[in-house]
Amino acid sequence: MSERTEVHRSPHKQNHDPEVAKSIISRALVAHVAISVDGQPFALPVACAPFKDELLLHGSNASRLFKALMDGTPACVTITHVEGLVLARSSYESSMHYQSLMALGSARLISEGEKRPALQALTAHLFPQRPSELRQSTEQEVNATSIVAFPLNEISVKVSHGQPKDKDFDMDSDIWAGILPIKVSYGQPIPADNLRPGIPVPDYIATWVAG
Amino acid sequence: MSERTEVHRSPHKQNHDPEVAKSIISRALVAHVAISVDGQPFALPVACAPFKDELLLHGSNASRLFKALMDGTPACVTITHVEGLVLARSSYESSMHYQSLMALGSARLISEGEKRPALQALTAHLFPQRPSELRQSTEQEVNATSIVAFPLNEISVKVSHGQPKDKDFDMDSDIWAGILPIKVSYGQPIPADNLRPGIPVPDYIATWVAG
Repeated sequence: MSERTEVHRSPHKQNHDPEVAKSIISRALVAHVAISVDGQPFALPVACAPFKDELLLHGSNASRLFKALMDGTPACVTITHVEGLVLARSSYESSMHYQSLMALGSARLISEGEKRPALQALTAHLFPQRPSELRQSTEQEVNATSIVAFPLNEISVKVSHGQPKDKDFDMDSDIWAGILPIKVSYGQPIPADNLRPGIPVPDYIATWVAG
Repeated sequence: MSERTEVHRSPHKQNHDPEVAKSIISRALVAHVAISVDGQPFALPVACAPFKDELLLHGSNASRLFKALMDGTPACVTITHVEGLVLARSSYESSMHYQSLMALGSARLISEGEKRPALQALTAHLFPQRPSELRQSTEQEVNATSIVAFPLNEISVKVSHGQPKDKDFDMDSDIWAGILPIKVSYGQPIPADNLRPGIPVPDYIATWVAG
């Protein structure tokens, strides 16, 4: 944490447990990556995955965002999980449960030697167990992919959880108060239109769906 | 759309249907709001709601982000829904279904006269039907809340959907390919620890949970 990642508002929500940061990243499919061009910020969703002490960001050589990231432009990477609605006894105290991680820094281009392990890590994160089934990427595919690593040494983690915090004068209210959890889950797999007959859904997908 | 919201990469994903933009916003609880301070971007999750032709963003007077937004600093507001995993027959073609909306512009402070209707719209969006039960906010609560409206006249909407796009030479593969939908749903409501006995879960919450 540095002065610029310090939480000025609601400092009690700031969390310094590295396991919480790790857990936020481990559940992320996308991060929002922000860069600034001539003072105008742009924030876009990008597929992400943990890779050693850094966060991989995956995109295309042709995108403006990745060109800027590859040039080392200052960026901000934010991951957010909204985990519940907090139904308090007033609008003012109603809020959400969430966990978010904001990282500041500049991306570094993955070296040629690291590129295949990095792509493998990305696939394994987003599609667990699938890399063992998939063929190796071709040279052309590897060359056409941009992958950068973003540092995680300047981060701010916020966790909002707990009970509705109602004012004393609202405690006589007849209104229901509590938490409504938000769940993210996988639905039933839908075979590709051109899937060859007789190819079953792999067992590992059943375990993702079951959660 | 303007030059700066044009999708340079994957232009086929750009979507100009206002109903799609509306639908992305209607399902959003939070947006990622990015600003730039001395060339360093910051992106943070913020509760949001549609309000006439604009997007409401809700925060605190005390936050750096909201101070900057209230000063009219150039900002980017991005909403993303990740809707599925696309399991192709190669890592390279594996991807995600998503819908995202990026809006560029400067927020405007909600006028005193608009503040209560705007707060009401925010509560009604995040907690449908609940405003009819909740007491009116006090003057103090209204004053302590910052709410800004963000323009939606310079937006870029991207929709990635459809089938896995595999290369011809992968079509003989024995690997399962298809879509794994991602669902966001509410779990069972958890009463507040200090809820007075005998207050039932309101019927409208059952309808949220049932989806």
